[in-house]
Amino acid sequence: MTKKSPAHELLTNLENFLAEENFGESPKELYQPIRYILSLGGKRIRPLLALLSYGLYQDDPEKILGPAAAIEVFHNFTLMHDDIMDEAPLRRGKATVHEKWNPNVAILSGDVMLVRAYDLLLKSDHQYLPEIIRLFNQTAAEVCEGQQLDMNFESLTVVEESEYINMIRLKTAVLLGHALQLGAILAGAPSRDSQLLYEFGVNIGIGFQLKDDLLDVFADQAKFGKQVGGDIISNKKTFLLIKALEAAKGQDLMELNTWLSLKEFDKTQKVNAVTALYEKLGIRKLTEEKMNFYFSKGFDQLESISFKNPDYHETLLSITQDLVHREK
Amino acid sequence: MTKKSPAHELLTNLENFLAEENFGESPKELYQPIRYILSLGGKRIRPLLALLSYGLYQDDPEKILGPAAAIEVFHNFTLMHDDIMDEAPLRRGKATVHEKWNPNVAILSGDVMLVRAYDLLLKSDHQYLPEIIRLFNQTAAEVCEGQQLDMNFESLTVVEESEYINMIRLKTAVLLGHALQLGAILAGAPSRDSQLLYEFGVNIGIGFQLKDDLLDVFADQAKFGKQVGGDIISNKKTFLLIKALEAAKGQDLMELNTWLSLKEFDKTQKVNAVTALYEKLGIRKLTEEKMNFYFSKGFDQLESISFKNPDYHETLLSITQDLVHREK
Repeated sequence: MTKKSPAHELLTNLENFLAEENFGESPKELYQPIRYILSLGGKRIRPLLALLSYGLYQDDPEKILGPAAAIEVFHNFTLMHDDIMDEAPLRRGKATVHEKWNPNVAILSGDVMLVRAYDLLLKSDHQYLPEIIRLFNQTAAEVCEGQQLDMNFESLTVVEESEYINMIRLKTAVLLGHALQLGAILAGAPSRDSQLLYEFGVNIGIGFQLKDDLLDVFADQAKFGKQVGGDIISNKKTFLLIKALEAAKGQDLMELNTWLSLKEFDKTQKVNAVTALYEKLGIRKLTEEKMNFYFSKGFDQLESISFKNPDYHETLLSITQDLVHREK
Repeated sequence: MTKKSPAHELLTNLENFLAEENFGESPKELYQPIRYILSLGGKRIRPLLALLSYGLYQDDPEKILGPAAAIEVFHNFTLMHDDIMDEAPLRRGKATVHEKWNPNVAILSGDVMLVRAYDLLLKSDHQYLPEIIRLFNQTAAEVCEGQQLDMNFESLTVVEESEYINMIRLKTAVLLGHALQLGAILAGAPSRDSQLLYEFGVNIGIGFQLKDDLLDVFADQAKFGKQVGGDIISNKKTFLLIKALEAAKGQDLMELNTWLSLKEFDKTQKVNAVTALYEKLGIRKLTEEKMNFYFSKGFDQLESISFKNPDYHETLLSITQDLVHREK
């Protein structure tokens, strides 16, 4: 019989911690949106990574629920502000904060969330504070840089592969890396390990985003939460589109550019046509290869750390492998 | 011959420090607005208060240029986000960030500014980090609360005096208090003193805002930077309007309410009529008394601290007195 995974209990403790945390009460327009966005759920993957990373080296991960929660609160702050910028009406199937209240509430409530993330970071062993705040700041600024690059890409005709990888690294991957690094630092892990865990997180984070790009086109609609082909319909500059624009020649390129320029079109027809072009141009395979490159680079890094608790290592591996193999 | 005030040199050092600080470079949409808003100037009163407060107890205030700059960067972050919410076209006579770029840039660039403020706080003696970050966080959240209350007041018919005082305390005064407290803590001042300096800052901060409300109505237009009567024209719920609505009866109240409800009006006529009502109802005197109450409470607190360097005490007193007596 295998030992029960520690993930379930950690997640329960984390939810209780978040539910009991006092973010503030008045004025309610400022604090209700914080509760609201945190209540929309999500996998809590980032704080879980921090807790598991800590658990590789120490037996009491509940000691770092505060800083682990800081990562989740920060992540939700970025969602609240990104949703304003992206004019997103829905987040996890519910109205976004700027829709349910208004954009000003979403700006200001997000600002307070960022401040509260620093409050939660303070709930750490103070000997580590200068280092973890410095690294948190660096990551936070990079996440903002990624969001700005993503917005800039919307108005560019050509985006290079390296620019795209850099954007998703900043916007998505570094926060996963930072979560793992944070747990390791707070556990007093060797700095070689906290660095390897950071790079593991960054590499699988890039892989996850490439997986997202793939699923948006090739997922099984019966299993997928969103509309398959949403990125194609909106001309989103994903890895697939960037590579297709690089690879397509002659008739294929004309066809692709026509679909990109049409203001009115049948959605199913466009999705089918562009998907067929992706297949024809070998983009699916190429993206899978790129994704697997980052995954295997990451898992090699995870394998090369020293650790004390093998059950945490196993859980970390199994949770990230589940994300690698997800179909939605 | 009196000794030269230390303020001038401190301000020069602060400007140099800000000019040399690396906030980031790329993407430029994220970082240029930070440089831009900081270059619009301002009196730098908050970092100066922090430096002077430190100087009361220690001879090397240039040691805390980083955390002092953090207060100024935080203040400018709040201006950048407030300007979006208030739809302000101008800041110190120049285009606001959301006008010069766009609101998304102003949101995201502001977010990074807040993160950079924490980076600057890290440039402190690390023994004080937990305390100063905790107090900074509390102040930052309160400033957001004040901004939310200010926005809420716009759609309220009645605002109580105590609600108004609380709003300006949060939105404006606590940051002045925090700047002074920060300097004192970093100088290792007795905690009684850092608390008294905080309260001094809060009380004079409330007084300064009441002074702003008064100047907007009663300033000499030849000396005043803005249009005298701007608050009257926009029905802004200032201390004067709140007290006038409390005090006015019969014909006066009808006249005041008429001016408040008119959608189209002659600006000069409205300003003259409401100003005359304020005088008739004794609102000017009443506001001056309230303002002086906070000023004298604050200066009593400043007088009761122990300090080492009398020239810094003198400078602190003279700089705040200049603000008390300003005509613009």
